Amino acid sequence: MQDRHIVVVGGGFGGLQLANDLKGAPVRITLIDRRNHHLFQPLLYQVATTLLATSEIAWPIRNFFRDRPEVTTLLAEVVDVDSSAHTVTLKNGDTIGYDTLVLATGATHAYFGHDEWEPVAPGLKTLEDATTIRRRVLLAFEQAELEKDPAIREALLTFAIVGAGPTGVELAGIIAELARKTLPKEFRNIDTSKARIILVEAGPRVLASFVEELSDYAQKALERLGVEIHFGKPVTSCTAEGVTIGDTFVPCRTIVWAAGVQASPAAKWLDIPADRAGRVVVDKELRAPGQPDIFVIGDTAAVTREDGSPVPGIAPAAKQQGAYVAKVIRAKLSGQPAPGPFHYRHQGSLATIGKSAAIIDFGRIKLKGGIAWWVWGLAHIYFLIGTRWRIAVAWSWLWIYISRQHSARLITQRETMREE
Amino acid sequence: MQDRHIVVVGGGFGGLQLANDLKGAPVRITLIDRRNHHLFQPLLYQVATTLLATSEIAWPIRNFFRDRPEVTTLLAEVVDVDSSAHTVTLKNGDTIGYDTLVLATGATHAYFGHDEWEPVAPGLKTLEDATTIRRRVLLAFEQAELEKDPAIREALLTFAIVGAGPTGVELAGIIAELARKTLPKEFRNIDTSKARIILVEAGPRVLASFVEELSDYAQKALERLGVEIHFGKPVTSCTAEGVTIGDTFVPCRTIVWAAGVQASPAAKWLDIPADRAGRVVVDKELRAPGQPDIFVIGDTAAVTREDGSPVPGIAPAAKQQGAYVAKVIRAKLSGQPAPGPFHYRHQGSLATIGKSAAIIDFGRIKLKGGIAWWVWGLAHIYFLIGTRWRIAVAWSWLWIYISRQHSARLITQRETMREE
Repeated sequence: MQDRHIVVVGGGFGGLQLANDLKGAPVRITLIDRRNHHLFQPLLYQVATTLLATSEIAWPIRNFFRDRPEVTTLLAEVVDVDSSAHTVTLKNGDTIGYDTLVLATGATHAYFGHDEWEPVAPGLKTLEDATTIRRRVLLAFEQAELEKDPAIREALLTFAIVGAGPTGVELAGIIAELARKTLPKEFRNIDTSKARIILVEAGPRVLASFVEELSDYAQKALERLGVEIHFGKPVTSCTAEGVTIGDTFVPCRTIVWAAGVQASPAAKWLDIPADRAGRVVVDKELRAPGQPDIFVIGDTAAVTREDGSPVPGIAPAAKQQGAYVAKVIRAKLSGQPAPGPFHYRHQGSLATIGKSAAIIDFGRIKLKGGIAWWVWGLAHIYFLIGTRWRIAVAWSWLWIYISRQHSARLITQRETMREE
Repeated sequence: MQDRHIVVVGGGFGGLQLANDLKGAPVRITLIDRRNHHLFQPLLYQVATTLLATSEIAWPIRNFFRDRPEVTTLLAEVVDVDSSAHTVTLKNGDTIGYDTLVLATGATHAYFGHDEWEPVAPGLKTLEDATTIRRRVLLAFEQAELEKDPAIREALLTFAIVGAGPTGVELAGIIAELARKTLPKEFRNIDTSKARIILVEAGPRVLASFVEELSDYAQKALERLGVEIHFGKPVTSCTAEGVTIGDTFVPCRTIVWAAGVQASPAAKWLDIPADRAGRVVVDKELRAPGQPDIFVIGDTAAVTREDGSPVPGIAPAAKQQGAYVAKVIRAKLSGQPAPGPFHYRHQGSLATIGKSAAIIDFGRIKLKGGIAWWVWGLAHIYFLIGTRWRIAVAWSWLWIYISRQHSARLITQRETMREE
């Protein structure tokens, strides 16, 4: 009998964990991703803010499986699924047959019906997004140094971040430190420490997924770094000239979008209804409704906990789902009973504010301040894949900590300079 | 009396050395570069071949001068010089006045009248060039893994490098090692070790600037890595389908150009004649002809040694020229006699072939093989700027040496995939 063919679409945390946990099972695996690298998304904001280099948080997917001859990695884009024929369709028209399909295609940022904002307010999901944001932030300071008109100079030195979830808070904190601590001695015509960093949050507090005490601490830490926080009003317009918060227009040349999330179009491929964020509402075994051979995991899936609350869209959740589906597949192959419904264990929530403060909520244990920052750093180094990168990232951070100099202040991939 | 205003165009090895050596002199310096970073060009081929990350060989120029308040760094593009008005013109129309001007604007690759080859045969001068070549090399393997037509697969697995100077030899050696040693276990449908790496040299030997013995050794080392070397015939055509060597067409999807060099248009700005490579023929004090206040250094200048032979276009030569002009400026400011004509000291020639062989010519001492490779590595780490980068690069190389795994195998900045 031929080994069962598992097709995994997406080499993020969920897809990789699944392929990893199927080691030794009597299966062939084809892992398809449209990028050649797995991205350690929790640290992507550090690339956008010049702390880490692109290659420190992204690793070639096929390299993970060099010693797994039963795993084939393909750099290709899936554009459709034919669940009756049991095939996925690639962009070049080829089809690949599967016995079991796992969709782990992730999510992208969403503009709540205002996709026209994307060119001026990029989100942060890919390496290119990160280098785009890095380029814009650094170019704004460079252009301000050359600018003679004080109004334009002020707009160039104003940075708006939309959304005060972990990504927004982390971006605002590091950009503030860049402006106030790293850059001041390097410019002659402008005072970078006077840059305005504006964090816009439609809700009533930052990091709403944390308990109020930690959320308050994060807000104070941001304010100490000179971040202006605007609560309770949504962004109503983003243009090349500035951002409108509620009814107030703020001239500003750099906007970063850290607000909405939209799942990839897996539901459309399967021709099944999706939730408001485009996610597939899966059953208790993470299967797509009515599809015994199709699992959906990670940010593409809407999964609820036993108490009805949603499983958060974070890396540990995706990894647990990947591990769970591997167990379901193994059980089925060996004729064992299924492992029971998926159960999410929340291991904790972490967020950093700048380079020396963080908040951590492990449930009973809550940490904030410098100690939390060290715990956060060690945890992230531990979760990086491979000794080589653990040491490289540890060294980058240690150097930044000692010298206050950022590692990766490169302006690359020139886009047309926004000249006046 | 106001301090003399020195305008330096170009933050390469020559411009940086000059600004560095003028520390403490009674001058104001404006350093203008169209990029925000200084690039350690001798290692650029390692970015193109996935050994090093972009940020390991490029550092923000203004950061070098954070403790030199008299130095202003501008990210801007110079498009003209008005030597009678003593001004340089920026792309945005602004002019900047100078007392002394130093043009250190470098060179780019040249296609000997075939600029139409550039899109299919990129050269290697900027970080973007390096990531473009890296992307194309990695994508060729990825597309071959997906390809069903054996002829197209073979063309995808053929890599042509045009020009067997140090850059061409270094690229060919590392691409051969990538194909034969790093990648084989990662692909399932293709045998990457069967990839053809073709090095095309119109002259009779590789590394013509070295003595024949070392040049022969390099050729043998390349052949051991399975590089096919074609001597004595020029490339007569480069297209998306392949390269024509003399009269022979070789189907191939990846071409890298490491052949000609063309100086930046400084001569045109000054409206003076240039040599065949576009360089300004300077006098013995590195001044542009008839321009007492304009120096030209580095790859933009044609400088001859006392024996009439040309000073090579390498980093140490540019640095010596920058240091020399700083001395001339200092002498003039203090009313001392000029330091005499520029004298180039050749410190040695180095080139690597793959990850464990190198050749070094220090004049009386000539080294080849493994020892030369270690000397080469230590020398380059020494020349990198700053402890932070010395340690990071040393760690990257050590890891590659131990694990045979490359560091930076990222496909970024997607261009349209070359689909069939």
